[in-house]
This record gives sequence, C-alpha cells and structure tokens, in this order.
Amino acid sequence: MSKKISGFSKLSKKDKIDWIHENFLDKDFSSAKIIKQYWHNNKKLQRIHDEFSENSISNYYLPFAIAPNFLINDKIYAVPMTIEESSVVAAAAKSAKFWMNNGGFRYKIVDDEKSGQVHFFFNGDKKDLSNYFRKIKPLFFSNTEKITDKMNKRGGGIKEIKLIDKTKELNNYYQIFATFTTADAMGANFINTCLEKFAETLTNSFKLFKNIKLSKDNFDINMSILSNYVPKCLVEVEVQCEKKSLDELEPSIKNFSSRIVNAIKIANNDTYRAVTHNKGIMNGIDAVAIATGNDFRAIEAGAHAYASNSGKYKSLSNAIIKDGVFKYSLKVPIAIGTVGGVTNLHPLVKIAHNILGKPSSKELMGIMGSVGLAQNFGALRSLVTTGIQKGHMKMHLSNLLNKFDTSKSERKIAIEYFKNKIITYSGVEKLINKIRGNGF
Amino acid sequence: MSKKISGFSKLSKKDKIDWIHENFLDKDFSSAKIIKQYWHNNKKLQRIHDEFSENSISNYYLPFAIAPNFLINDKIYAVPMTIEESSVVAAAAKSAKFWMNNGGFRYKIVDDEKSGQVHFFFNGDKKDLSNYFRKIKPLFFSNTEKITDKMNKRGGGIKEIKLIDKTKELNNYYQIFATFTTADAMGANFINTCLEKFAETLTNSFKLFKNIKLSKDNFDINMSILSNYVPKCLVEVEVQCEKKSLDELEPSIKNFSSRIVNAIKIANNDTYRAVTHNKGIMNGIDAVAIATGNDFRAIEAGAHAYASNSGKYKSLSNAIIKDGVFKYSLKVPIAIGTVGGVTNLHPLVKIAHNILGKPSSKELMGIMGSVGLAQNFGALRSLVTTGIQKGHMKMHLSNLLNKFDTSKSERKIAIEYFKNKIITYSGVEKLINKIRGNGF
Repeated sequence: MSKKISGFSKLSKKDKIDWIHENFLDKDFSSAKIIKQYWHNNKKLQRIHDEFSENSISNYYLPFAIAPNFLINDKIYAVPMTIEESSVVAAAAKSAKFWMNNGGFRYKIVDDEKSGQVHFFFNGDKKDLSNYFRKIKPLFFSNTEKITDKMNKRGGGIKEIKLIDKTKELNNYYQIFATFTTADAMGANFINTCLEKFAETLTNSFKLFKNIKLSKDNFDINMSILSNYVPKCLVEVEVQCEKKSLDELEPSIKNFSSRIVNAIKIANNDTYRAVTHNKGIMNGIDAVAIATGNDFRAIEAGAHAYASNSGKYKSLSNAIIKDGVFKYSLKVPIAIGTVGGVTNLHPLVKIAHNILGKPSSKELMGIMGSVGLAQNFGALRSLVTTGIQKGHMKMHLSNLLNKFDTSKSERKIAIEYFKNKIITYSGVEKLINKIRGNGF
Repeated sequence: MSKKISGFSKLSKKDKIDWIHENFLDKDFSSAKIIKQYWHNNKKLQRIHDEFSENSISNYYLPFAIAPNFLINDKIYAVPMTIEESSVVAAAAKSAKFWMNNGGFRYKIVDDEKSGQVHFFFNGDKKDLSNYFRKIKPLFFSNTEKITDKMNKRGGGIKEIKLIDKTKELNNYYQIFATFTTADAMGANFINTCLEKFAETLTNSFKLFKNIKLSKDNFDINMSILSNYVPKCLVEVEVQCEKKSLDELEPSIKNFSSRIVNAIKIANNDTYRAVTHNKGIMNGIDAVAIATGNDFRAIEAGAHAYASNSGKYKSLSNAIIKDGVFKYSLKVPIAIGTVGGVTNLHPLVKIAHNILGKPSSKELMGIMGSVGLAQNFGALRSLVTTGIQKGHMKMHLSNLLNKFDTSKSERKIAIEYFKNKIITYSGVEKLINKIRGNGF
C-alpha cells in the first residue's frame, strides 16, 4: 500500500488504522493503541457514533460540562456546554450566578424567519420573466405541498416567494428568494427540498400557460440552497441591574460598570477589538450548540456576517447606563433546531435537551443568547479588571499539572511557584522534575 | 437541594450528576446511566479529559475521521477531521482525490503576523502622549525580555509597537497597537502577557524621564488583549487544471467548469449566498482545527470578519478560466498553533499531529486552507449538478437506519423506498415498523 489510496472508505475501521500506521505513523503501534483506546466497549453504541461521519476511526472527546444557575425568563436552567477551551464554562457559571441575583436574563425572539434562494441566470426579456413568475407563483406552493404539509401542521412553512432582479450586480443574474419558518427544526433539509422543487417548477411550467414564449434555453439554474445569513432569525437578550450593584461586584475597581460600557464602545469603534469581543460571545453560543447537536459553523457564519452588515464589523452586544441603571444586551441571529438531525441520533445530545427541559427552538435561541451574553460579561469582567491572563493561566496550569499526574503537595508548590511567572509546558515540566528529582 | 446551587464546581462528578438528576431530569435514572456510559474505564485518562473544562461530567463524542489523498505542495497527507456533519469528510476526500490527479493543492503563506492592543483613554495633550510614547518605546521591548527571550529563539517575537490615535472615532481613545509573530504557537498567552506588560509600562514609567508631566490620572487603561482579527496571518491556496479535465469530471453536465465560476461570481455579489458559501469552507477548516486542538471560534471570527473587510461580505474563494485553464483559489486568515495549549494535552490531538507528520504552524495553515478549498469544491460540485440534497439525504438515511439497528435487507428496502421521498425520522420509523410488523 502507498500514501495514495483507492477505496479507503470501504476498508474496515481496523484496516483503515493499519493503513494510516503503515504510511503516516512510521508503524508506531502505540498510536494505534491510543486511537483504539477511545473506542466504546458497547459495539452498538460505537456503531451509532461511527456513522456520523464517513471514514471515522475513533471518538474525539470534548468535555460535556454544565453551567448551572442560569435564570432565563424566570426559569432556572443548568446549561450543558461542550467546549475544549478551559475557563469558558467557569466564566459562564460565574456570570450566571451574578445575574441570577439580579433578575436574570430576559430574551425575546425578534423573528424566526429563514431564507433560501434559487440562483439563476436568465437570458431574455425581463418583462417576460416577471410575467411568467407571476403566473407560476401558485405552483411553487402547490408543487411543494407534499413537503410543506407536515411543516404547516407544526406551525412552519413557506412565508413568501419573490423574484429578485440582481442584473445590476451581475449580468443576467436573478433569484427566487423564498422565506420560511421551520418550527422546531433547523429546517435545512426542508428548505433545500422546497428550493430544489422551485427550481424544477421554474423550468418545467412553460407549457401550462398560453402566451408564454420562454423555454429552458432562457434559463440557467446555477444552484438552489438555503442561506446561513439569517438576519431575521434573531434573538435579543437583556439583563439589567442598578449601576451600584454592578460596581459592588468589583469593589476594588473604580467604576466597574463604566469600564464595561467603555469596553463595548471600543468594540463598536474598532474592528480589531470587535472581532475578539464577538468571538467570546460565540464561545458560549457554540458550546451550547455542540452540546445540543446544532451546527456551529452555520451559527458562526450567520452571526459574524450580521455583525458586519452595516458595512463596518461591530460588537453584537451593547451596554448603557441610564438613570442609575445598567442595561446590557445582545442581539444575535441564531438558526437552530431542537428536533431532527443529530438531536435524535446522539445519545448525549438527547440528554442535553432533557436537562434543558426539552426546549422549543425559540427557547433554545433564548438560552444560547443568554449564555453568549454571560460569556461576554465574563470576558469583559476579567479584561477590565485583573486582565485575562490571571484566570486563564490558573486553568492552564491546572491542566498541565494533571498531565504530569501531580500529587496535592506538588500542585501546591507549583501554584505558588507560578504565581508571577509565565506558565508554559516546558516550565511546568522543569519544575516537576526538579521537585521530584531533588526533593525541592 | 434546589435548582439554584452554590459550590457546584466543588461537587464530585457523581454528585454533580445526582444534582442534575434530582432537579432537571425528573430523577430518570436511565439518563444518569447514559451520561456515565461515556466515561472512560482508564481513570487516569478520564481525569485528563475532565480537566479540560470546569464542571465536566462526561465525554462528548465527535467522530475522529480521516480524509486521505490530499496532495499539498507535493506531499501526500491523510487529514484528520473532527465534525458532526455527515458528508463533510466524504466530500473532502472526494475532492482531494480529483485534485491529487491534477497536480494537487499549492499553498503559500502570505504572512503570519498577529496583533494585540492596549486599549486606553487618555485625557491630556496629544503631543505629550506621543512624546512620552516615543521615550518609553524601548521599555516595551526591554520590560518584556523575559517573556520574549524564548519566543525570539524560536523565530518569533514582537515585530512593531505603535501608538494609534482613535480619538476621531471615540473621545480620548488610543491604542498601543503591537504586532507579533509566534512561531509554531498560536501565541495567545504570549501576546496577552506582553500586552499586559505594555500596559504596566505605560502607566509606570513617568518618573524615569525628565520633562514628562503626565501621571496615572491622565490614563485609563480599559483592557489589553490580542485580536482574533488577523488579516495578515494569511494563507493562499490554489489548484488548477485544464478546463477540459474539469468538464470531464461531470460529463453529464454542460460546461461544469463555467458553472463553478458562475457559482463563485454569485457568492461575490450576494451576501445571502456568500455567507453559506464561506460556511462550507469553514466546515473543512474547523474540522481540521478541532482534530489538531485549535480554537475554531478564533478562526471563524477572523475568517468571516476578513470576508467582510471591503464593506461588503464576500466569498473567500475565487475561480477563473483563462486560456483553457481553470484556476481556483482560497485566501483565508488562519491563526493557529502546533505546540502549546490543547495540542500537548489531548492524546488524540497528538495523534492527529503525528498523522500529519508533525507540521509547523505554517504547514498546518496550508493543510487547513487546502481542506477548506476542497470542501468548497465539494459543495459547489454538488450544488451546480445534482443539488445538495441527494448526497446529504443518503448520509442522513444511513444514520437513521443505524439508529433503528436495521438489517441488510431492511436497509435495502428503505434505500429503495426513499429514492424519491423526503427522509425524516418519523418517515423512517414508520417504514421500519411496517417492514417489521407486516412482513412488507
């Protein structure tokens, strides 16, 4: 066998690993052992996980963690979060606790509209096209009835279908721009199936009407696909408290609440800061997305594009102090689902939904938004007070000490030693060797 | 105990799960069993994974999969990918194979510069500030020598430190804007530690110089933090082939190569499409990021902000046909590391690096960029030919059939049955019940 291979996907898991070994791991058998040590003993369960992706050879562990004490619209949640970055869950939990004692998070769903487009080029008279579109518009609905029937019963469906002329931007380019609501489903399959049917209808209905002189030759359907840009699938989350209460949270810091407000002003004025600011918000949102089986790439794309939709990339959160009250909010598009897809298949995802009380997709949007805002609060709280490194390094040191399987007394020495030093792998290694070798 | 809790992080893992049960799972003990069934038998290994995050109660499985046949800068890779979305790895592998036979991927690192800022408000004469900054500039370097010493030896360090006047955008707002290279580390800890030292230097060096009339009262340091906006930490990946070879890949489609070019023109002109287009690219990049222990939220934030930096959100990839040659490229900022952080701690991450041949961070940028472009190609290939649903639904059906633990003959019936139908959980459930109940 060589590094180039045909039919890899058809090999057994064992043979896949053997081939990787032979060709990419210098036949180092300890690696194979590590890959296999993550297999689950329960073969039936393992098979479910293998099927999530082609060519899966093992299970990649991410921590399944809990951030308790989230009071959201008067209901208390313990929020499952899955993320590799140490300190994210700790920060969320810490923020949640403060806000629980100050009325908690309140969310409202601004709208839950999603959209998809049939992108096509049309070569002909614009008037003929709009005339044809008007005639076939009812067919877009009737031809998709089999698909939309169930969705309608669940409260979702097609909202509107429009023809959009984009020829000023690109020669002959038009869209069928359709909007949808998808109830508790993320709805990607539903939307894409509808759109593919729209495209079919567009190029197959000429003969149904008199006086339509168009033919297939006038049309070049490029693609039919939902959009992850979802500026109308929007949740708004807010917390508020007396300015005084917030200032008392950090008594050693002068005017803590104003420092938070300034931090957000900076994020709204400087792209370099805004991107990192929003990244922190997404730490929280993504962690809940993964735990609940949602596609975090879709949420990321939608959120960052929304942050840039004024032409300048800005903060997704906002804060003001008015009449002695600190108001702090987040507006972010989140297109997710609580049924379908991975939610039915991954056993821990199911547990995550159960822990959250089987939320609707709107409720889950509210939960994710709240965790995003909590995360932003946690990051800003560190940044405008002691700086981010202190907490971060504490977690990092703990990880490293674990790696070296340290005893309680060794940990104590190390924590003291690194109090004012930069924590690195080699630094920790050196210290542990010193402790163990020389009695220290 | 109640749903509100103090000291949750201090509970044992068992007690955490008990509390969740009691309060959020209606004392349903099967849930506890599922949470615990994901624990690893090897307690030492489990402890490493527990420490990645506060409040971790179990391991969340994501598939650790392999996309073989990536020819990148004349070297063959089998790329580890970790992602929950079915069909991503399959699409990457399929694209890789085609491009391997057409010269493979070529990448170049445009630059690997990162930046961080000390954000501060200055209340005083601008001239005094710039004069003071000029005087203390050498101190920024000398005061961080202990931190930068090692990084310098590895080929990284501080590149430039500038004072930026942002007062036109926000009253009294200035930045110390510093640029860095960080060799094979992601460098977040290095950069943040440097920046916090810069802030300290800025507010502690008045007395070292004559004629400096500034004091701490003139300064309000808001925060010191690296930026995830990294437009200069940029990789460019390209593939090219004869237009004819590409058209032959999809012989039943007229002018396949032009359809790809049109698809990208559309993404460059329409935000609704561009966001989804780039989302597909990130499917590939994130999957490699997770497998190699990198922070995908940072990469996501940087990539989408970069896509919007012209004021209009655009495609990250590009394609042209010129003189009978199809050229297809991707330019994307990717700030990652191959040492430090999770890379040293997660056993499977280490394996992922070994499978890739222990790449440098620049090499890994090239690999991620190549997978991103492959993913984009795979998505466009489906979209402009049969549509996205066909392949997607095939994988989805396979997942569902597994869930119902179907036999080979049951699978065969189901695949035939769903050939022209929409695949849903309830639809599959109904069919399987029918097969099993009535002999079908």
